[in-house]
Amino acid sequence: MTTQDSRTHAIGWHKDYVTGPQPGVRVPVRRVHLTTGDDVTLYDTSGPYTDPAAETDVRRGLEPLRDEWIAARGDTEEYPGRPVRPEDDGRKAATGEGLRNLDAVFPGRGDGPRLPRRGRPGQPVTQLAYARRGEITPEMEFVALRENVSAQTVRDEIAAGRAVLPANVNHPEIEPMIIGKSFLVKVNANIGNSAVTSSIEEEVEKMTWATRWGADTVMDLSTGRNIHTTREWVLRNSPVPIGTVPLYQALEKVDGRAEELSWEIYKDTVVEQAEQGVDYMTVHAGVLLRYVPLTARRKTGIVSRGGSIMAAWCLAHHRENFLYTHFDELCEILAAYDVTYSLGDGLRPGSIADANDEAQFAELRTLGELNTFAREHQVQTMIEGPGHVPMHKIKENIDLQQEICDGAPFYTLGPLTTDIAPAYDHITSGIGAAMIAWWGTAMLCYVTPKEHLGLPDRDDVKTGVITYKIAAHAADLAKGHPGAQAWDDALSDARFEFRWEDQFNLALDPDTARAFHDETLPAEPAKTAHFCSMCGPKFCSMRISQDIRRAHGDAASAVSAGSDGTGDAEIAAGMAAKSAEFAAAGNRVYLPLTD
Amino acid sequence: MTTQDSRTHAIGWHKDYVTGPQPGVRVPVRRVHLTTGDDVTLYDTSGPYTDPAAETDVRRGLEPLRDEWIAARGDTEEYPGRPVRPEDDGRKAATGEGLRNLDAVFPGRGDGPRLPRRGRPGQPVTQLAYARRGEITPEMEFVALRENVSAQTVRDEIAAGRAVLPANVNHPEIEPMIIGKSFLVKVNANIGNSAVTSSIEEEVEKMTWATRWGADTVMDLSTGRNIHTTREWVLRNSPVPIGTVPLYQALEKVDGRAEELSWEIYKDTVVEQAEQGVDYMTVHAGVLLRYVPLTARRKTGIVSRGGSIMAAWCLAHHRENFLYTHFDELCEILAAYDVTYSLGDGLRPGSIADANDEAQFAELRTLGELNTFAREHQVQTMIEGPGHVPMHKIKENIDLQQEICDGAPFYTLGPLTTDIAPAYDHITSGIGAAMIAWWGTAMLCYVTPKEHLGLPDRDDVKTGVITYKIAAHAADLAKGHPGAQAWDDALSDARFEFRWEDQFNLALDPDTARAFHDETLPAEPAKTAHFCSMCGPKFCSMRISQDIRRAHGDAASAVSAGSDGTGDAEIAAGMAAKSAEFAAAGNRVYLPLTD
Repeated sequence: MTTQDSRTHAIGWHKDYVTGPQPGVRVPVRRVHLTTGDDVTLYDTSGPYTDPAAETDVRRGLEPLRDEWIAARGDTEEYPGRPVRPEDDGRKAATGEGLRNLDAVFPGRGDGPRLPRRGRPGQPVTQLAYARRGEITPEMEFVALRENVSAQTVRDEIAAGRAVLPANVNHPEIEPMIIGKSFLVKVNANIGNSAVTSSIEEEVEKMTWATRWGADTVMDLSTGRNIHTTREWVLRNSPVPIGTVPLYQALEKVDGRAEELSWEIYKDTVVEQAEQGVDYMTVHAGVLLRYVPLTARRKTGIVSRGGSIMAAWCLAHHRENFLYTHFDELCEILAAYDVTYSLGDGLRPGSIADANDEAQFAELRTLGELNTFAREHQVQTMIEGPGHVPMHKIKENIDLQQEICDGAPFYTLGPLTTDIAPAYDHITSGIGAAMIAWWGTAMLCYVTPKEHLGLPDRDDVKTGVITYKIAAHAADLAKGHPGAQAWDDALSDARFEFRWEDQFNLALDPDTARAFHDETLPAEPAKTAHFCSMCGPKFCSMRISQDIRRAHGDAASAVSAGSDGTGDAEIAAGMAAKSAEFAAAGNRVYLPLTD
Repeated sequence: MTTQDSRTHAIGWHKDYVTGPQPGVRVPVRRVHLTTGDDVTLYDTSGPYTDPAAETDVRRGLEPLRDEWIAARGDTEEYPGRPVRPEDDGRKAATGEGLRNLDAVFPGRGDGPRLPRRGRPGQPVTQLAYARRGEITPEMEFVALRENVSAQTVRDEIAAGRAVLPANVNHPEIEPMIIGKSFLVKVNANIGNSAVTSSIEEEVEKMTWATRWGADTVMDLSTGRNIHTTREWVLRNSPVPIGTVPLYQALEKVDGRAEELSWEIYKDTVVEQAEQGVDYMTVHAGVLLRYVPLTARRKTGIVSRGGSIMAAWCLAHHRENFLYTHFDELCEILAAYDVTYSLGDGLRPGSIADANDEAQFAELRTLGELNTFAREHQVQTMIEGPGHVPMHKIKENIDLQQEICDGAPFYTLGPLTTDIAPAYDHITSGIGAAMIAWWGTAMLCYVTPKEHLGLPDRDDVKTGVITYKIAAHAADLAKGHPGAQAWDDALSDARFEFRWEDQFNLALDPDTARAFHDETLPAEPAKTAHFCSMCGPKFCSMRISQDIRRAHGDAASAVSAGSDGTGDAEIAAGMAAKSAEFAAAGNRVYLPLTD
């Protein structure tokens, strides 16, 4: 392995890479520089954007790092692909009712239109298929280095269906990552415009911003205008896997009339998105017609958009969910691009009152069946989970899911542990997220402060990601993930030794930590002061604690001797000696601030 | 019981009172007005400040509500009290080095200086003593109404030492509250100036502000200038119990030299604060000389200020902690004023690495002993807990504490579940707080975003309180506290029915919820719109879900009939009929927005 320096020492950390045995395996890491001269190495999701040696251009997109690996496997073919149609950006765009933003079409790398790629007929080109054949792909090698585990472990977990490595053959720009309970807990950030607000540029920027703070995947949930085009920009510029809910775009194609949806329109949309490179898709195939009535007496009915759309379709036609009846065909499509299933929980509870009810668990049992089908087709699969769940009902969710879905990765939204705090649902859900991740959830879908109230802006995205990184890391610690505690230890060492700059640089959010400190003690010398504004110099416990250690040296042995059978007189003599020693040193518990 | 209206209907809720059988028992509640015409009743900690019928004047202080109850018991006497001395505001104030803010002296009610009160010689005047004698005091009646439980339950829990009702006879202004695992989980907010920053006015305002958002008690941790005077202002204006750490003031009296502390100076300070009306005091009597060496190999040593001060004293003198050796005498003082012990965890872990170590648990065992002593002296007692603890080590803390301390209320700071997020420690700790409260912690000490970095300002206090109210309420739900879920249900009903104003008014923080909503959909009609900016009108799952319910009426019975043994043909016929019905209604899943 070799490492390579970049030019960002000044800001407290620099981007570095760890290379593996297979060609092109070059895993990004974040090296935090301590004032002690040491480095702390952290997982990095921010892509080439934080590497000053990389030239990025949002109009060209990122380098297609995986192209060679995919081509070398020889099991895929390029083909002309489905023609892009105006209605891909919504029916209004097609009829000229809406304003289609033609300037926004992705310019690309200047070497003509990119041809999509798919598996040769009958060839599942999924990481699951490779893993089952015993192959260790460069993608597996990459995540093994990233997670500090063996490539065999990665392969075995994928082969068993306990982990997924979402990596569409048409998204060669990603830096591979893995989702499974044996690995670091991952965080997804949702972005996406809606009919009411936001632009393409904002969505691309939100994606970059979210990964900058640690989002491991991003879901583009756009429902507004320019839906195809927005996704193209996001995909071409994203270093992390991109997830979508194809149903949202399908509904746009029928101008929002759920009853006009059909398997054909849906399938066309899935192919469209698979050709673009979407890495995982939420599919609400578990919302069966007979489950819909189970939601009738709920407090908040169906709160999943996809779930409610499919429920409306089922009731309108009084036929079974077409995603369920065409699931085999869907598996074949996903297998040809290595799109990972995220089996949607369309009937998740939307309130504390509805948690763990029959509607929810009936759907979960169906997701378990579908998981089995998907595995038979060698399609990687994860299972989505709730929602709103009080703390005492959380564990049942992960335990049931693991049992019913044979260990497939669980991907949960929160859960929110109370309904009473709109504007703080990143916190109500961060609590539930940390707990369910400790108990086995592999990826957490973030919730921002705007949940239930509005679309998240840049600050909300950051707050959501940071909150969920906290939940994920707290879970990594609780699970005893090897190496997780090293980060906490490095930060606590810095804190105890009053290395303020190191404390800031090691923080999940160095900017805010530094700003908060500077509000009360802004001067530069305060960053080396052996106290802070909370207690002031006299009351600083860490300072006193350090001073004790310094002033008393081996006090430990003298004092603790008592319990080892030393006689009272001897102890008294020891005490007196220690006392005199302390007085001789000037009776100073507080050493001069300049030391 | 009677209730009484006030004049604040316009702001979404009004202050109301529930009266009990004993004279003067008048329990404040918050009545939230719904647009449906119903009220939702919530616990209210904000004191007379939110009652337009009450005239409050910060220079006079609040009405001494409990004066009659205390006098009627006939077991206390007024006495001249300890003279207030300049050094009570710090040695610098006494020597003229510091600027003593004489203008800041509390003016009071204009009827001359208030005489302190204490139990007649040998008479413990504690709620514990009364409860053990089988008495139901007005204070117990008050909290029974407040918690919706029987007064007998309150008395029994106090008598058993499983709950405390902190209510110094010299703090008659409080609205009584109870801390115990059978009751609602409580939240404490810390305020207090430091040598570096903040003024008396700010501290009084922080107290009012914290209770406005739901703080159940407030600790005044001032260490700076005007420490006695600040406390007087805070006490006379506080409707909630006030806690302190007398050691901080004692240390100010010896100008920060821990080795100059003595039992006499400490005792004098305790009497001074007891006469002012402090309701509970943190006492670090469990930091024994022989435990200090156990912290030597820790990553972050001793992080409790009180703990480090006592450790420094023990080592300086090589003698046992004077708080431990004089504990009996201290009990007698506290019993004479009904000051509640909060036995401090001076050796709590300050980092993930130090959690649940021998130093921490050795101290806890000593706190268990002290708890027994305190109960013998009829002093109400709670036990403080950590700190920094990873999730998988949290439960051991509460289980051990409950066992060792015979069910005495646990009062924990967080715990923080990871060290890596300075500036977000309200969240790292909110996670741990919710969990430990579910498992039995009775009161949570909040942590603000400024923890480890600086002193909290007004916004930080609010964020800290709201975060901890979320943790406390999530725990109430998980414990199945009777009535806790009614709040969530009311809010979720409002959400499902698009009653936006009700949703805002029921929120823990109505202002921020409303502001977030208005950022994207500010117009007044949007507050009645059947969608929000997140998904827009077409994609709103709740709207679709409602429409399904409306359009399909009893679809439930027709569809679910299948599983009840109805034949296939019958089901098909039912489906076709339903489908026709839907078409006849115009195939509209989305009803016009004006409906």
